[in-house]
Amino acid sequence: MTLSIARPVPLKQIQITDDFWSEYIRLVREVVVPYQWEALNDRIEGAEPSHAMKNFKIAAGLESGEFYGMVFQDSDVSKWLEAVSYLLETSKDPALEQLTDEVIDIIARAQQKDGYLNTYFTLKEPENRWTNLAECHELYCAGHFIEAAVAYYKSTGKSKVLDVACRLADCIDQVFGAGPDQLNGYDGHQEIELALVKLYNVTQNERYLRLSQFFLDERGKEPSFYEMEYHRRNGKVHFPALDIVHDRAYSQAHKPIRDQDTAEGHAVRAVYMCTGMADVAAETGDAELLDACRRLWRNIVSKRMYITGAIGSMEYGEAFSLDYDLPNDTAYAETCASIGLIFFAQRMLQIEARSEYADVMEQALYNTVISGMSRDGKRFFYVNPLEVWPDAIGKNHTVNHVKAERQGWFGCACCPPNIARLLASLGHYVYNIQGRTIYANLYIGNQATVDMEGQQVKIEQESQFPWEGHVRFHIDVEQETEFTLALRIPKWCREAKLMVQNESVSLSDVCENGYAYIQRKWQPNDHVELDLSMPVHRMTGHPQVRETIGKVALQRGPLVYCMEEADNGPNLHQVLLQRQPDYQIQFEPEVLGGLKTITAPANRLETSEWGDQLYMASAESHLKEVVAKFIPYYAWANRGRGEMSVWVKEK
Amino acid sequence: MTLSIARPVPLKQIQITDDFWSEYIRLVREVVVPYQWEALNDRIEGAEPSHAMKNFKIAAGLESGEFYGMVFQDSDVSKWLEAVSYLLETSKDPALEQLTDEVIDIIARAQQKDGYLNTYFTLKEPENRWTNLAECHELYCAGHFIEAAVAYYKSTGKSKVLDVACRLADCIDQVFGAGPDQLNGYDGHQEIELALVKLYNVTQNERYLRLSQFFLDERGKEPSFYEMEYHRRNGKVHFPALDIVHDRAYSQAHKPIRDQDTAEGHAVRAVYMCTGMADVAAETGDAELLDACRRLWRNIVSKRMYITGAIGSMEYGEAFSLDYDLPNDTAYAETCASIGLIFFAQRMLQIEARSEYADVMEQALYNTVISGMSRDGKRFFYVNPLEVWPDAIGKNHTVNHVKAERQGWFGCACCPPNIARLLASLGHYVYNIQGRTIYANLYIGNQATVDMEGQQVKIEQESQFPWEGHVRFHIDVEQETEFTLALRIPKWCREAKLMVQNESVSLSDVCENGYAYIQRKWQPNDHVELDLSMPVHRMTGHPQVRETIGKVALQRGPLVYCMEEADNGPNLHQVLLQRQPDYQIQFEPEVLGGLKTITAPANRLETSEWGDQLYMASAESHLKEVVAKFIPYYAWANRGRGEMSVWVKEK
Repeated sequence: MTLSIARPVPLKQIQITDDFWSEYIRLVREVVVPYQWEALNDRIEGAEPSHAMKNFKIAAGLESGEFYGMVFQDSDVSKWLEAVSYLLETSKDPALEQLTDEVIDIIARAQQKDGYLNTYFTLKEPENRWTNLAECHELYCAGHFIEAAVAYYKSTGKSKVLDVACRLADCIDQVFGAGPDQLNGYDGHQEIELALVKLYNVTQNERYLRLSQFFLDERGKEPSFYEMEYHRRNGKVHFPALDIVHDRAYSQAHKPIRDQDTAEGHAVRAVYMCTGMADVAAETGDAELLDACRRLWRNIVSKRMYITGAIGSMEYGEAFSLDYDLPNDTAYAETCASIGLIFFAQRMLQIEARSEYADVMEQALYNTVISGMSRDGKRFFYVNPLEVWPDAIGKNHTVNHVKAERQGWFGCACCPPNIARLLASLGHYVYNIQGRTIYANLYIGNQATVDMEGQQVKIEQESQFPWEGHVRFHIDVEQETEFTLALRIPKWCREAKLMVQNESVSLSDVCENGYAYIQRKWQPNDHVELDLSMPVHRMTGHPQVRETIGKVALQRGPLVYCMEEADNGPNLHQVLLQRQPDYQIQFEPEVLGGLKTITAPANRLETSEWGDQLYMASAESHLKEVVAKFIPYYAWANRGRGEMSVWVKEK
Repeated sequence: MTLSIARPVPLKQIQITDDFWSEYIRLVREVVVPYQWEALNDRIEGAEPSHAMKNFKIAAGLESGEFYGMVFQDSDVSKWLEAVSYLLETSKDPALEQLTDEVIDIIARAQQKDGYLNTYFTLKEPENRWTNLAECHELYCAGHFIEAAVAYYKSTGKSKVLDVACRLADCIDQVFGAGPDQLNGYDGHQEIELALVKLYNVTQNERYLRLSQFFLDERGKEPSFYEMEYHRRNGKVHFPALDIVHDRAYSQAHKPIRDQDTAEGHAVRAVYMCTGMADVAAETGDAELLDACRRLWRNIVSKRMYITGAIGSMEYGEAFSLDYDLPNDTAYAETCASIGLIFFAQRMLQIEARSEYADVMEQALYNTVISGMSRDGKRFFYVNPLEVWPDAIGKNHTVNHVKAERQGWFGCACCPPNIARLLASLGHYVYNIQGRTIYANLYIGNQATVDMEGQQVKIEQESQFPWEGHVRFHIDVEQETEFTLALRIPKWCREAKLMVQNESVSLSDVCENGYAYIQRKWQPNDHVELDLSMPVHRMTGHPQVRETIGKVALQRGPLVYCMEEADNGPNLHQVLLQRQPDYQIQFEPEVLGGLKTITAPANRLETSEWGDQLYMASAESHLKEVVAKFIPYYAWANRGRGEMSVWVKEK
């Protein structure tokens, strides 16, 4: 039984016209993707070489040399290819398309006769294919290539890349399975699972869906596949610093996935796995699998997620730690993990229209994801902590993974291309279409055309998000058409007003699971207005979260705010917010591309009375009156090195 | 120029009669030292073998086998020997003395013809002596042996062990020095420096003092000795997980010691070095060196020390981090480091009678040092954090070095024997004698006999410390004798009363640098009473300390208090103390050997309203009235695994 899955609007049919997001997409198109292309070809001065394109050329027999880079270096090319595919689907670019065709030609030549495609093993250890799934990312790389191939095929209709992907998938399908001569294993980094479902969707070849399901169901079985292959290869280890073979929770292989109740291990792996689980559950109607998705979702969002939509509380293993353990300064909070969380949220939203999935999508997108990229599109954060004391970096090793400033292309370059492919495909996240219902999940200005069972519905959304909560939909149909427009009422909004054709609609009458359903016979040139109030919210954390007690975070609309040293001076921990301050909101067009800042009266602890004393008895704190200034979290670290804090103490 | 150095009363002349400390010393004598002897001989079931005595026996030709253990394994025997020496000096024990003589015979046989003494190199790498000072602890082991030898000689008057020590020191003096055929280097772990001054004190051989000074002054010079010897041995590394050769601050070799302003690197090394620096400054009158000691002291106590007298803010390198960085949960706070800090404080106090040195000595002693040992003397803490969440250990790797319960003998067994030798020599820390002044530094009940330039002065001190602040001195002289009794007025005491022969003395008239000087012609059977008020103090941390803002710690007398899960339930972070609570102090004889607990009205954050929500807007905290109970920090973790917190939030 297939569930009734809501589908996004194809990128061809949606143009992002949003003031806020258009600039990001322009950056991806004009800066990030070209820059990444230079990086993939080792032409960025001063940056660590990627060698990723060179590896493919050598494997293709076009150049000579040796493999260089991480075992998963290929995936950088695939993520670039995927991002480019979305850009091309959104708007034509013949030169870019020609370049991409050339890349695909190289990749096709690098593919082996049996369909195998991986430059590390082809060039470096051809005899060791499929001997170290736990560590060596073969299926992960395959997955990223398949995702890219599906995207390029959908974008251009050109089947060459899809053929390469199918031959690769067929090769994998031969090697892996329950048969006597097959490997009954799974990859150390989930990715192939969700990719195979994409390939199934575009080819309708059920073998790919079954193979995805196989990989999911093998994970965590006893005896451990990792240990078996480890013994078969005589204990050879690829990443000696980790213990991937035995630390099975690191890659969520500690128990069968259907028995997992908590999100464990490497955060990116966990949410990629959940995405694949939701994909398979959606296609097969597997209720048990869907239940596991819901449990893992619930665990993440109610116990293991930062207010910025970030996940992964610790650097060791880039991993989840335990319920309610959300340290602000030692967090890992990887950009890629929040992107993966958005994938998971999107899939759950396709299965069940509950606004909470879109809420989290929005939370991760407007905060952690775009925090991951500088305002010029050239520098990136892997790690997105909620509190940074730059002086401590390099001095106290618990924060040595944190950077106080965004970095150029990285040795392990997973985050920048992941940001690029997400932003280039942003149109996929705005609407879902299910039968005769159009779900508006995100309030991002756009013009879209939806095929409503043969009828063309044109939707124009105007939004000043994230700065203002007024959203206007202009619905244009050629003739009267009955369908439902379902608008998400964000959780952060306490006062929403809905007007359909200038007539007020009572939200309580039409809301279900966080969506306001407007079912009507739409006429040409109809319009709907949604007013979402955006006061500053004083957010508090669950009392089980040790790191947020006695503190608040300011949030306005989807944006979480933070204090920076650039506005407030150093020692942000000495700022105490008043309990009921009068917040001033101001649009500052000259700050970081224009943004709304929040100021509030506050106090600052004085140190002058302390002299050399480190501890004092019955000392009364001396306070100075100050004005605390907050900027959106995403914009931090664009004005030089300094302290930052999301959570602020209250007086 | 030798400074006028105050000297402690020899252990022979002081008997600790204190209710509180006698029990600890009994534990050392009856449990710790015998247990350690069993451990050194690998007779503790289930514990990692030490092999330390066996190594000596093999090196002595008495047994066959191979070296086993850490490169510094020998030092465990020396620390045991030193503790035993103090016990024997305090009270005779012929069986123990005979056993010790046998140990010394073995050690003497293990000494090489040229005086060299180190079982690791003798048995395992005889050709590599003195080739890896940075990592291999040869001089560190020598230092501990010399300390033990001096202690045993002073205790028993037997010179055999001192001869071994002198021959070892002579061997070192030949190898190291500025001469053309000598190594101009220094050890990776400071210890030899302070040991050589002890040897100089007992032998009056100035070569040992000069050698100590040489080691101190070589440290941190350019070019780096560590790098030179590293290249000479072709880059061979003993501890690959560390980078001792290049991470020069780890062993305080980043700059010449006279230029150092901040305490950096491995905390134990740092304070052992400071102790040696103070020793040499005291003996030589080197003002520049003394200034460096004062600067490092000031940096530690005013910027890098926990309220418990613990030092070392991070696990990486067991090291100092940066000014005001004092995380409570990820602290290293090693027991040995606080013992080293006591050594440093003691030496500074011998040079200048400023109560702050004794204050810190007391602070470290009553809190971190005895926290390091369980109430049965069988289990020990290396790491003494100020906040523990046991569930996080093993889940969030930033706290994986923390143990929620004391452990048995360790693989690297530095702390237990260090506690033993400190407690066995506790009498050394009570008084200092300088000319005709007797300084009372610690209020620990005792009976002492002081030689006042030929006159015997008997002092009996009665104290109920740390529970009550009343201290009574009974001074007995055979005939009228003029001298000064100087009593420390602890920094934690705001209201002290002094009575000499039942007559009140105005403290402001007689106090200088924290000591009250009572200069008089003492008569037989004189007495002095000191009343130190001990209310509960609500301690706050300097506003630069991020981890203590908005929190208080309770202190009463020298004792820092903490909350434990055993008394307050889990989630201690949800307890908010009232600002001006009415503290109840109660002696509970049945709790952990009898101690005073503090209770105070408090509030506890409720979680029932939160359901599945992790963050809420404008949530008002729901509070429950509770009574918070505090026990002295030293007594924590004696009632099973549970949370602990020193710093508590205020409402």
